[in-house]
Amino acid sequence: MSATDNAFDLLVHKAFIIPSCEVYGGIGGFYDFGPLGTRVKQRMLSAWRDWCLRQEGFFEIDGSVVVRKEVLVASGHVKSFIDPMVKCGKCQEAFRADHLIEEQLKRNVEGTSVEGMNKILSKSKVFCPSCGTRLPAAIEEFHMMFPLSVGAGKKMIEGYLRPETAQTIFIDFPKIFKATREKLPLGIAQLGRSFRNEISPRQGLIRLREFEQLEIEIFLDPEKIDEVAGWEKLKGTAVTLRKVDGGDEIASVEALLGKRLIPNKYVAYWLAKEALFYEKVLGIPSDKFRFRFLGPDETPFYSKGNIDMEVSTDYGWKETIGNAYRTDHDLGTHAKSSGKDFAVTVDGKKFVPHVVEPSWGLQRMFYAALEHAYRPKDRDREWAWFALPAWLAPYDVNVFSLVKKDGLSEKAEEVNSTLSAAGLSTFCDHSGSIGKRYARADEMGVPCCVTIDYQTKEDGTVTVRDRDTMKQVRVGMAYLAAMIRGRAKPPLGIT
Amino acid sequence: MSATDNAFDLLVHKAFIIPSCEVYGGIGGFYDFGPLGTRVKQRMLSAWRDWCLRQEGFFEIDGSVVVRKEVLVASGHVKSFIDPMVKCGKCQEAFRADHLIEEQLKRNVEGTSVEGMNKILSKSKVFCPSCGTRLPAAIEEFHMMFPLSVGAGKKMIEGYLRPETAQTIFIDFPKIFKATREKLPLGIAQLGRSFRNEISPRQGLIRLREFEQLEIEIFLDPEKIDEVAGWEKLKGTAVTLRKVDGGDEIASVEALLGKRLIPNKYVAYWLAKEALFYEKVLGIPSDKFRFRFLGPDETPFYSKGNIDMEVSTDYGWKETIGNAYRTDHDLGTHAKSSGKDFAVTVDGKKFVPHVVEPSWGLQRMFYAALEHAYRPKDRDREWAWFALPAWLAPYDVNVFSLVKKDGLSEKAEEVNSTLSAAGLSTFCDHSGSIGKRYARADEMGVPCCVTIDYQTKEDGTVTVRDRDTMKQVRVGMAYLAAMIRGRAKPPLGIT
Repeated sequence: MSATDNAFDLLVHKAFIIPSCEVYGGIGGFYDFGPLGTRVKQRMLSAWRDWCLRQEGFFEIDGSVVVRKEVLVASGHVKSFIDPMVKCGKCQEAFRADHLIEEQLKRNVEGTSVEGMNKILSKSKVFCPSCGTRLPAAIEEFHMMFPLSVGAGKKMIEGYLRPETAQTIFIDFPKIFKATREKLPLGIAQLGRSFRNEISPRQGLIRLREFEQLEIEIFLDPEKIDEVAGWEKLKGTAVTLRKVDGGDEIASVEALLGKRLIPNKYVAYWLAKEALFYEKVLGIPSDKFRFRFLGPDETPFYSKGNIDMEVSTDYGWKETIGNAYRTDHDLGTHAKSSGKDFAVTVDGKKFVPHVVEPSWGLQRMFYAALEHAYRPKDRDREWAWFALPAWLAPYDVNVFSLVKKDGLSEKAEEVNSTLSAAGLSTFCDHSGSIGKRYARADEMGVPCCVTIDYQTKEDGTVTVRDRDTMKQVRVGMAYLAAMIRGRAKPPLGIT
Repeated sequence: MSATDNAFDLLVHKAFIIPSCEVYGGIGGFYDFGPLGTRVKQRMLSAWRDWCLRQEGFFEIDGSVVVRKEVLVASGHVKSFIDPMVKCGKCQEAFRADHLIEEQLKRNVEGTSVEGMNKILSKSKVFCPSCGTRLPAAIEEFHMMFPLSVGAGKKMIEGYLRPETAQTIFIDFPKIFKATREKLPLGIAQLGRSFRNEISPRQGLIRLREFEQLEIEIFLDPEKIDEVAGWEKLKGTAVTLRKVDGGDEIASVEALLGKRLIPNKYVAYWLAKEALFYEKVLGIPSDKFRFRFLGPDETPFYSKGNIDMEVSTDYGWKETIGNAYRTDHDLGTHAKSSGKDFAVTVDGKKFVPHVVEPSWGLQRMFYAALEHAYRPKDRDREWAWFALPAWLAPYDVNVFSLVKKDGLSEKAEEVNSTLSAAGLSTFCDHSGSIGKRYARADEMGVPCCVTIDYQTKEDGTVTVRDRDTMKQVRVGMAYLAAMIRGRAKPPLGIT
């Protein structure tokens, strides 16, 4: 066993991520992105913005994470954003009751009430994972939002850290609709942090208390829900769909829509967009993710169809994207609660737009991409590494000097500066053996390394070492930047 | 009077910014960035990252906004991050006592204790700005951080929303130092949100409760504080410095350093970087900002010199950047409080690095750039507009069809798609007179508009209208993308 035996450990080892407040004992469910993780995340977001927003003509907003209580009363979060909590009578540790029942009794209690779960706890024995004591049938409702008091005196306002990014888009919709020339369909996205006071955060980056969402709300005329601009291009995209009965069907989104296994053409289009991004941009093999049609017990009353993306991970199949046809529920609710008009008038018709929502989780996507890029050490390579797609790598290239002396380290710095000025992200390293420097670059997922040696001074060529094949070739410096840039170009027309 | 008589009103009118939770009555001190504001902010941050991080070889991290209480006990925030609050005995509204004393009595009370200000209130009359009642000499200490309880049961942890981004960099420093190959100087930045529960948020984007900071901590060997890599290039940069005695001196940062009006070469170098960014990238005239050396009553005990940037705005001169030579105070404090080792060993010498901190405020920078780009309506133009630098504009170009019919709107969509595929940010609009569409583009700060007309179908040329000169020229479509991209290229070698 070593510190790099799985993807998560290697991420921590190389400080892609750093447990928040670690020097003070940490704080469960919070992670900082270190230098490498920040770079990978930024490149992922940049590709995502291009594929999901720019290429769709969608807009982006960036709202406050603190919102008034009224917003979340209207959305239903204040009333129902709760988890069943059970505390151990002996050690006082708190747990998610539903998780323990599922794990220890192998019973699915999705949708079961607190009362129902208390009955289970009184009949069947469930034990404290921490001290082994039998847990009491005393499940409480634990509220998952973080409350805040804003201001002072009589102007004090009750607020919360937002539990999702979507609500800002809904409440700002009338202003944005006006500012973007009053046309439908209108796609508005928000990329930002959300907060949930999980009772038991766990599984690394999977269940966090502070995390980022990439949520898109597509506002449309329900009578035109079959008019999707890019449909012809993507309708043939094949995906795996797990049906409510549990069976899997692999077919084009068009065929699945024809069989009514997808609620409407907009959702079908977005399943194709999501599958292409996961496979082509993130590099996750298509047999490692699937879509799942949610059953009625997993779906809110107003929904006309929810489909999750799930990815196979070290922690099992995990939801990474939720797609929902939310109808006019959100705008209608806020119109009623605020007394403001959320209807639009388009082509002489006044109505409340319907909403299709693709909602992506950033940390889970980040983790899934890194886990599937993870390669354990083997006979060829004595270190674990990340086979990250070049366009997601934290650096495009690392530059080394064979030895520090004889002007080679100065020459390496010069090459490094030239590559950086050409817009490439580079890192220059002079210390340790070349083999160790290659190993470090592999651990960071850097797709290629350039080494400056004595021959460089003679003929202007450098050694380029490829991460995946470990092969080395000599290249003239004039071609270097173009060659590296060519490898780092993302697919799908992403600029 | 109209809704666009000043920069702030035009920003709200065009939904660059949207008061948070506006449909529910708003929440003072919080603003959402709408579609246009989000684009401008992203372009500003992109230029900033290039100039301040990539060109310096600095690293970036992205940490949680929730931090453990211990972090902020160690930093001193829990004890001293307080404001003097006075409540009106009649209407119960709360105010900043120091602000009221300064405004109504014209007395500077920076550094005065609560006791001292209570004495002032009992001798001199200060009135409630809301109802006019005389305020009591009953100032309280109001804590400006938002507290949170994280988790449940015996594992519950006390935390806060961070009041600044710097602390994450300090507490993660040992891990990052190791991950970046243990070299000094080491620059680490964090761009992200901070939160302060202001008693009286005001002045638009100037005094907010949720805002973004761009903080850089440069860790260095104090014996090498005069070894700044880029010094030769920037030392001749002229800046205006307001001295502690109030007099202004305009000279190169090298000359000011020679006169000991700047604490050290690192700070001098960063003043030059900041001045160049404000003038060349943000487009703010150099006589509209200055640096100010803070006096002893404005500086913490451990500081060896603080210099603020101040910008002239509609609200007066406002601090937009703080520069501080913080010595080894932060790392030393966290080492002591956490019991962990924050010292480094470089070239055989073990020591706690010193820190130079340039700390930029995002919203104030954003607002300053927009205010200085604001142009009121005049004889030539019947609408107010933003003369934003092309590289900061929310769109590179807008594309119009002269009329919707005869295939012109299809042709406009085609040109729009071509420009978008070339990586330009575009927006296509078919409705309203061409004059009105030019006006809307000006209001958004779009540097040029392309109009498709009948001649386009004949000879493939389009009309390009320049925002600043209002002049129109005909250009062949083959040159269009390159021409627009050339105008949008930022200065300072930013790629």
